Amino acid sequence: MPGLRKQIFLGTFISSKSRQELQYLHDAAVCVDSHGKIVKVDVDCTSAELIDDRLLNKLGWEKSEVDVHVAKPGQFFFPGFIDSHVHAPQYPNVGIFGKTTLLDWLEKYTFPLESSLKDLAKARRVYTACIRRTLANGTTTAAYYATIDVDATNLLADLCLSLGQRALVGRVCMDNQDICLDYYRDESAEASLEKTLQTIQHVRDIDPSFELVSPILTPRFAPSCTSESMRGLAKIQRDMDLPVQTHISENKGEIALVAKMYPESSSYAAVYDDHGLLTPRTILAHAVHISEDEARLIAKRKSKVAHCPCSNSVLTSGAARVRWMWDRDITVGLGTDMGAGYSPSILEAARQTALVSRHVAMGIDEADPEHERSKLTIEEALYLGTRGGAAVVGLEGRVGGFEEGMEWDVQLIGLGDVNEEGFPADIDVDGGNVDMFGWESWEERIAKWVYNGDDRNTKKVWVKGRLVHSRR
Amino acid sequence: MPGLRKQIFLGTFISSKSRQELQYLHDAAVCVDSHGKIVKVDVDCTSAELIDDRLLNKLGWEKSEVDVHVAKPGQFFFPGFIDSHVHAPQYPNVGIFGKTTLLDWLEKYTFPLESSLKDLAKARRVYTACIRRTLANGTTTAAYYATIDVDATNLLADLCLSLGQRALVGRVCMDNQDICLDYYRDESAEASLEKTLQTIQHVRDIDPSFELVSPILTPRFAPSCTSESMRGLAKIQRDMDLPVQTHISENKGEIALVAKMYPESSSYAAVYDDHGLLTPRTILAHAVHISEDEARLIAKRKSKVAHCPCSNSVLTSGAARVRWMWDRDITVGLGTDMGAGYSPSILEAARQTALVSRHVAMGIDEADPEHERSKLTIEEALYLGTRGGAAVVGLEGRVGGFEEGMEWDVQLIGLGDVNEEGFPADIDVDGGNVDMFGWESWEERIAKWVYNGDDRNTKKVWVKGRLVHSRR
Repeated sequence: MPGLRKQIFLGTFISSKSRQELQYLHDAAVCVDSHGKIVKVDVDCTSAELIDDRLLNKLGWEKSEVDVHVAKPGQFFFPGFIDSHVHAPQYPNVGIFGKTTLLDWLEKYTFPLESSLKDLAKARRVYTACIRRTLANGTTTAAYYATIDVDATNLLADLCLSLGQRALVGRVCMDNQDICLDYYRDESAEASLEKTLQTIQHVRDIDPSFELVSPILTPRFAPSCTSESMRGLAKIQRDMDLPVQTHISENKGEIALVAKMYPESSSYAAVYDDHGLLTPRTILAHAVHISEDEARLIAKRKSKVAHCPCSNSVLTSGAARVRWMWDRDITVGLGTDMGAGYSPSILEAARQTALVSRHVAMGIDEADPEHERSKLTIEEALYLGTRGGAAVVGLEGRVGGFEEGMEWDVQLIGLGDVNEEGFPADIDVDGGNVDMFGWESWEERIAKWVYNGDDRNTKKVWVKGRLVHSRR
Repeated sequence: MPGLRKQIFLGTFISSKSRQELQYLHDAAVCVDSHGKIVKVDVDCTSAELIDDRLLNKLGWEKSEVDVHVAKPGQFFFPGFIDSHVHAPQYPNVGIFGKTTLLDWLEKYTFPLESSLKDLAKARRVYTACIRRTLANGTTTAAYYATIDVDATNLLADLCLSLGQRALVGRVCMDNQDICLDYYRDESAEASLEKTLQTIQHVRDIDPSFELVSPILTPRFAPSCTSESMRGLAKIQRDMDLPVQTHISENKGEIALVAKMYPESSSYAAVYDDHGLLTPRTILAHAVHISEDEARLIAKRKSKVAHCPCSNSVLTSGAARVRWMWDRDITVGLGTDMGAGYSPSILEAARQTALVSRHVAMGIDEADPEHERSKLTIEEALYLGTRGGAAVVGLEGRVGGFEEGMEWDVQLIGLGDVNEEGFPADIDVDGGNVDMFGWESWEERIAKWVYNGDDRNTKKVWVKGRLVHSRR
């Protein structure tokens, strides 16, 4: 990524201090070097003069080599969102699921579309739309499932790199001849592993140190794989130290199927563990119905969970228990899980996380303290979408906040202001459905953004210092 | 409403044929007279020539007195949404609720804001923003709660009339000195009734036959009223044949409070019935926890229910059982219930209706047929937001569809098209988050609109034939 100018960002910076608390830095400056790295965070920077006098001197930077970005009043910088579970090829199907649940949804809607993306022109169209749309919604990193097709998967990696989205890109392994449909499966375990290696090599060719795009090993889920392919992927994982992603315990029918297929394993989580796939770099999507034993095993292996509330609700899969998983030391992030999840937005996932947590609470007696504890706050939902997700995809400490040494994966948020007559203060700017009256505290501004915000409020998006999306 | 020109609308018209089914009229013409009434629906109108030759002759209209509106390819006309439960003064608080539930939320967030709107400049600002925002989201009719203040309530009625939104506007009655806070309550039952009559008279002055704006009697909920004020309102209802709106069985703490306050009544619903307020013109918001007996009583009295899924989820009130109420012959519509409900959009309420129905299903064993039956389809959710809501607010047969004799309360919907490269086909039009690839069926177009649509897809809104909102 050559040729980036040095940048200084001035204004309000909001990020998660902890799960429970947001940190508000007002009148602050964040200085980003030509590699997109945050090299200095300075508070109490109220004017451009201060920068001339103090910051530039401290940094040893010349004024001529620096671009200064000043947030407008009311705007704020916020860490880019991490989508820790998303199927790029399913993007055109968002919202289309009827009354299906997981297994019939896969056969009716998902496999036909995924299979059709071996047509590379179609794949380019769908993947471009998906990346652009998620970037516009503030997603700076995505853990993508592609399809079984090597060329189309490689194309997805190319497009992430050229459009500037940080991504983990996985060719989907599904080689179980008894379960997978004839028209959409790998020929054999051997072929599955060979094709996986081809994609890994391709990513290494285009981004040698996996700076922006990384391969990720992607056994679709236990039913669609053979023991042989899972063991082979686990070996690749150990040899190359790569991340892994798969699904777990989304739906009761799926769980019963896994129990029937793998009677020798003591649980769904144990199936992955018995095949060497439960690693600290493993992302498990859903985990809606996992048992105490499974939670203990997942925590012990330091595997991570991608919570996908939109998907879990529309497919009637269940209501995942985030607090319960946190209590058991499991690291959790958010996933849109498009196309079962209907929305490209992690902000929507955060909103639905708060709502689903209340449905979890409704299932617990009000006298039980767990009732109240189950409810997640806005702060907690935003933590899941930023720092939580960063930890899930292995980028903890690199993205998700504004600390020195982190990379500038950030969105600039602007909300709509209402003038004294009740009309939009600036008719040239679409502030979306968020109407600020001016008396709101910063905490209330955040609450109104989380509950009514959309991509119109994401004014600019940067990844590794590079501006990858902007709008009025 | 003088001076409207005759209008002919050409294109695709989609509306609810029944709860289960949408009707798609393609290449159709809908003719609207100068009173905003649909006088002719003609299918098979593929060109402007056809209108010249046939329609105008049939109608006896001169070409010069008619405006013709042609929907662009892919666009469609859809009935305006009915918001059957919304608190206009709470609009600035959308999304602000923390971890509160009903009773503490009222005291912490709601009453201070409502009370402050006795400042008429503030009321004008808030109400204007609320009406504009709901119109922009396609809400052509709203059943509004205002505040206890007569002047501010009358102002809300004035603004609905001038901005062109069909509305039921209620001054809130809350005269129970034991429950209501000193700073925000009516002085006495007598004062409460007198002020209610003042608002009724005001609406009669500005819209004598309640063509666009109607008063609605509004005992806030049983706890905040005295028996005397409720009986007085019931008498006004009978004398003037006016609609009534109140809340019922939203939250368990509230239900316990009502049981304690009205030990002589056999249930919460019975409290209203015993005071003469359970009428065919009564809108009951929420009804989350009503019993079989209460459902039977509500159905017998032909009272209606406003389902408010966003609000019920965020306040952890519960998951209302729409299918269960339908099975018991209760008429149901949708409400945003702002500001507990976080969204101004009935499309969002429809989306959440589908999701909440799946959480209802999750609470029922999968082997029980009621599990599957509980899940509401997109068609059913849209029915609730249009024809269902129309029946709830007493406008059945007048709005909510495209039949001859109905009034033209309609929105024009346009979705975003993706070009062959995966970019927006028209960069001058913001199609929102709905990306159409061109291969979708009409049913899939509707699904994608319901799940990702927002006000950007509502291109124009008419009420009673008058264009009240438009955007690119």
